[in-house]
Amino acid sequence: MSKKAILIICDGMGDRPVKEYDYKTPLEAANTPNLDKLAEKGLVGLMDPISPGIRPGSDVAHLAILGYNPYECYAGRGSLEAAGAGIQLKPGDIAFRANFATVNEDLTIVDRRAGRIKTGIKELAEAINQIKIESVNGVSVEFYPTIEHRGVLIFRGEKLSKNVSDTDPHEIGVKPLKSKPLDDSIEAERMAKALNEFTEKSFHVLKNHQINLNRVKMGEKPANIILARGAGSYFKLKTFQEKYGIKTAAIAAVALVKGVCRIAGMEIIDVKGATGGLNTNFNGKADEAAKAIKHYDFVFLHVKATDVAGHDGNFKAKVEAIENIDKMIGRLIDQLDLNETYVTITADHCTPINFKDHSGDPTPILIHGPETFHSEIKKFCEKTASQGNLCRIKGIDIMAILTNYMGISEKFGY
Amino acid sequence: MSKKAILIICDGMGDRPVKEYDYKTPLEAANTPNLDKLAEKGLVGLMDPISPGIRPGSDVAHLAILGYNPYECYAGRGSLEAAGAGIQLKPGDIAFRANFATVNEDLTIVDRRAGRIKTGIKELAEAINQIKIESVNGVSVEFYPTIEHRGVLIFRGEKLSKNVSDTDPHEIGVKPLKSKPLDDSIEAERMAKALNEFTEKSFHVLKNHQINLNRVKMGEKPANIILARGAGSYFKLKTFQEKYGIKTAAIAAVALVKGVCRIAGMEIIDVKGATGGLNTNFNGKADEAAKAIKHYDFVFLHVKATDVAGHDGNFKAKVEAIENIDKMIGRLIDQLDLNETYVTITADHCTPINFKDHSGDPTPILIHGPETFHSEIKKFCEKTASQGNLCRIKGIDIMAILTNYMGISEKFGY
Repeated sequence: MSKKAILIICDGMGDRPVKEYDYKTPLEAANTPNLDKLAEKGLVGLMDPISPGIRPGSDVAHLAILGYNPYECYAGRGSLEAAGAGIQLKPGDIAFRANFATVNEDLTIVDRRAGRIKTGIKELAEAINQIKIESVNGVSVEFYPTIEHRGVLIFRGEKLSKNVSDTDPHEIGVKPLKSKPLDDSIEAERMAKALNEFTEKSFHVLKNHQINLNRVKMGEKPANIILARGAGSYFKLKTFQEKYGIKTAAIAAVALVKGVCRIAGMEIIDVKGATGGLNTNFNGKADEAAKAIKHYDFVFLHVKATDVAGHDGNFKAKVEAIENIDKMIGRLIDQLDLNETYVTITADHCTPINFKDHSGDPTPILIHGPETFHSEIKKFCEKTASQGNLCRIKGIDIMAILTNYMGISEKFGY
Repeated sequence: MSKKAILIICDGMGDRPVKEYDYKTPLEAANTPNLDKLAEKGLVGLMDPISPGIRPGSDVAHLAILGYNPYECYAGRGSLEAAGAGIQLKPGDIAFRANFATVNEDLTIVDRRAGRIKTGIKELAEAINQIKIESVNGVSVEFYPTIEHRGVLIFRGEKLSKNVSDTDPHEIGVKPLKSKPLDDSIEAERMAKALNEFTEKSFHVLKNHQINLNRVKMGEKPANIILARGAGSYFKLKTFQEKYGIKTAAIAAVALVKGVCRIAGMEIIDVKGATGGLNTNFNGKADEAAKAIKHYDFVFLHVKATDVAGHDGNFKAKVEAIENIDKMIGRLIDQLDLNETYVTITADHCTPINFKDHSGDPTPILIHGPETFHSEIKKFCEKTASQGNLCRIKGIDIMAILTNYMGISEKFGY
């Protein structure tokens, strides 16, 4: 009989030794009885999301960890954001991650998030969706707001390419960038032109919108321009059902991660109070995962909190996030039959608190299940993982290892 | 702020357990306090220059270690020799490593190095450069002597291919080989024909040259033929400046290694007394590297002595070379700020003293720097490296790992 598996990604959990904390990492400093228990009786090692030293984005890392070679299939962030928002791209569409932002009259960016706008978004989106692209033929544009200042921008029409640069300069005090074609194709030129026209028009449509006039009156920052980044094109993946013949579900709050899971054919389970932040609903995630594994063969569970603390450079917050994850795991495994279920815990990449961004270091990984060897490692952390019984693997290996243990993988050759 | 890095290659340093020396390797038998100190506080592991078991040439191994996939870019030894000698190849050129050799009247090779000829080389080269190729149209030939019997031979013209065999049989007592095309192309056929014509004419031009008549009179071996090997064609690499935006320098005496570094865009720093031999100027290398890292982001330092001892099958000479390298490293790190500089030490391949040639065994590697984990390994050698916290990596991973630690690598994905 085939076994089940739960794959838990603690986003950005891995770290480097931190001088100020006696050269410990947050994972090493954290009290993690549940992780340690699973590590001792399971396989433990290091995992390079892509390959040693390569710094991955969360999108690319998740593709690899879920068994898709990102060098072959990655088509840009925008398409994953769109999928995460539940928008079905069509071949030829180009999608961008987009933000409401605040600019001055001379277009200098004051706030890339328009004061994290919470109300009036629908009305502003409606106004934006009146914009017609005129500088290139046969192209239309659609804007889908998601949460607060965030949204997805989709260009539809013939002859468009994702090979264009961002309009979002990723900093304040400067003007939005002109999107530029990144190759010599007519498609990239058309795309850049359409995006630049849209950006300009978004300012004209939004600057005197009643919602914004009211915001200014209330002392709030107007949401008066749309900044776009991470062009992506339509792509398709073989789903888990197609690849392995299994039913899968994903618990994730972050749109980008949801997008990868949705394209992989997973059912998305929403957890009340799951925020993608430090204060997410850890208990709710544990309970939903425990419930889901009764009905699905494979459950993917994503927690963002560790990455948030890493980007903030906050050692203590990262330790706390890890301890919360440990409690979540304790609550989850109490509800599981560990003789029937493989539990894998790793990170999609390291986000060292002194680096404050994704690094190319390997992350620790543990795989616990009915037929794994026992590492005998007492404390799960980066240092012990480098001495573990799984040695050093890559992200792309994980699904092959899990489906092998689950007893559902196909033989290569006879 | 980004960090700096020094990469030290101890050519052919790795070895196998040697029965006659209590199953120790030369590295294990050597007294290496400085290597051991760096190993203890750094990452330690095994490194396969290409992949496990593959026996690499120094050219291919250096390409991989410097981050260039040799399966994609390697274009033959000759082009690297040419670059090492400071000769700029043009697209279409074919370059060979060439030797002055000594043959009898019946062309039997007596000495592949013409008694390591030291004088009269310029005059002989001038005579060779009068040779006109007549058997194929539109091809000219140039000979550049480098050090002693060594030189570079370049064929220029249309329709030439590097896909031809050597004229150098790599042994004495036999005649020079006829170069043969290695594929069915007209280019390979033309190249082989031109090289064979050149080889024959080199004998006719050299045999009665006054320099050689004098040599014979003095009881020295005449330099009366040119033997060619390692056909290479023009190729270009993205430089370190282009790839990583950093300023780089290389300290290397061996032409082949210099060639790789030059094509990678590094400034070559010449060290007085650096010979590429057992008696090289170790102190000079240390001092120049310490000076260079003040002005460059990345310094590459190559020592050939270990490989020479390996090819000679001389255990004691290899131990001594390693101990000299260890002292060189001690002198170097005394002049470095190790909080700002990553120091990586490895070999480009193993040259086991009982094998007397490059083997496909993994070599030990250590990476010491401000944010590396500590291996706690007390003695740096092949055996302990297999238990180290870096596990087992490949040559192509090294630059990714270093640029990750230096804080200068780009993210893949978002």
